[in-house]
Amino acid sequence: MIKIALDAMGGDCGPKTNIAGAILATKAYPIEIILVGDKDLIDIELSKHSKSDISKLHLRHASEVIETAESPTKAFRKKKDSSIHVGLNLVKDKQADGFVSTGNTGAVLAASTFILGRSKDIERPGLAGIFPSKTKPFVILDLGSNVDCKPQHLVEFAIMGDFFAQFILERENPKIGLLSIGEEKDKGNALTQATFPLLESLPFNFIGNIEAKEITLGKVDVVVCDGFVGNNMLKFGEGISKLFSSFFKEEADRSLLSK
Amino acid sequence: MIKIALDAMGGDCGPKTNIAGAILATKAYPIEIILVGDKDLIDIELSKHSKSDISKLHLRHASEVIETAESPTKAFRKKKDSSIHVGLNLVKDKQADGFVSTGNTGAVLAASTFILGRSKDIERPGLAGIFPSKTKPFVILDLGSNVDCKPQHLVEFAIMGDFFAQFILERENPKIGLLSIGEEKDKGNALTQATFPLLESLPFNFIGNIEAKEITLGKVDVVVCDGFVGNNMLKFGEGISKLFSSFFKEEADRSLLSK
Repeated sequence: MIKIALDAMGGDCGPKTNIAGAILATKAYPIEIILVGDKDLIDIELSKHSKSDISKLHLRHASEVIETAESPTKAFRKKKDSSIHVGLNLVKDKQADGFVSTGNTGAVLAASTFILGRSKDIERPGLAGIFPSKTKPFVILDLGSNVDCKPQHLVEFAIMGDFFAQFILERENPKIGLLSIGEEKDKGNALTQATFPLLESLPFNFIGNIEAKEITLGKVDVVVCDGFVGNNMLKFGEGISKLFSSFFKEEADRSLLSK
Repeated sequence: MIKIALDAMGGDCGPKTNIAGAILATKAYPIEIILVGDKDLIDIELSKHSKSDISKLHLRHASEVIETAESPTKAFRKKKDSSIHVGLNLVKDKQADGFVSTGNTGAVLAASTFILGRSKDIERPGLAGIFPSKTKPFVILDLGSNVDCKPQHLVEFAIMGDFFAQFILERENPKIGLLSIGEEKDKGNALTQATFPLLESLPFNFIGNIEAKEITLGKVDVVVCDGFVGNNMLKFGEGISKLFSSFFKEEADRSLLSK
């Protein structure tokens, strides 16, 4: 059975939320989960659930926690017994098939690179995210791990995105788009113009440039961009959503007050 | 009295909308407007309004129109009697104090640069836009006229944005932020890292890096970024807004159907 190591200490809510999620996951999928983190804190949370609910959960103690605000590289070097280190080492030692963490993104990225290493021919790891669209979700990368990219890095993101879309989003022959500011081949900046012919020459379903206003229509399964642009778009999307929420809240308050 | 040349042919709706807007503008501000475009089409629209409404509107014939889909530089070279050329020449010849067009953005940019020239010490024109925020609107530039920027270009955008915020948005000592993916000086890509110290050395209110999720909170009056990032954010914002609208529409339809 597939075993997933889960960083029980990651995220803003700690073991409570991670364990609740782990229970849901073991009910939804044929997997076992190894909770990695502070044994005492995890035991307290586990004791709140029924024996059958936690029957597919295991525990691996880790004495340290990397906080969200810590410097990823410093924390990686200092806290060798963090839940992130211990979890990734389970994967390295083949005791787990994968590692999931909602903790310090930079630390997970740094630790993954150093502990697991990179795939052959992939120079840079990528940060991918799944975005909603009008039809179906798509994957976008890079979202900030590489802020100054060369064309080859975007090609690597496209290849990883293609696999992600096939095996995680279950898309056949995924459509891959290069984020740019115009659909024509010669539109965009120096980076996208140099990347376009490289993507064209690869044996996958590259549909050309795609504009940011088109990605939310669900026209592609994979959006490729450099991490500076991707991260800004991700955060701008977050900002806009909050802005809309605040407008709605104001409007709702006003309409309740007027009644 | 201030005279504004208006491209009566610009935009998707032609003279009708431009003239309706011109009438509103002459009522709201102490200005006169010179409508530039096809005399016959403009006359037809003018005849639908009362004499007093159009008392501050003038007419200057232009025999050609640059369409939205045309190549900006080709159209600029071929259509020398376009409403964009004629309007900008009115500014050049001091018969108008400014030119407004909702037409082909690239053509307006190219024509402005060639007909009016650039200000001393400004290498690149900038495309600015006004965005809403939770508190007050802010100006963001560049939105796509310069997709591969050097630090000096971002400095120029900051200077132009500072003037825009002072004189158009009426902000005292405008707060200027450099769009980046982290607030610290050393966060961002090579371009923002090189631009930060240049902005720090200038005698205006540079508040440092600002993240895209913070700009919608209204923390700054001016956001500076390169045109590739700015244009992608602008279009992504458009895409997200449409996505939200479609979700609301679906929800509204569903709730109407269920009644």
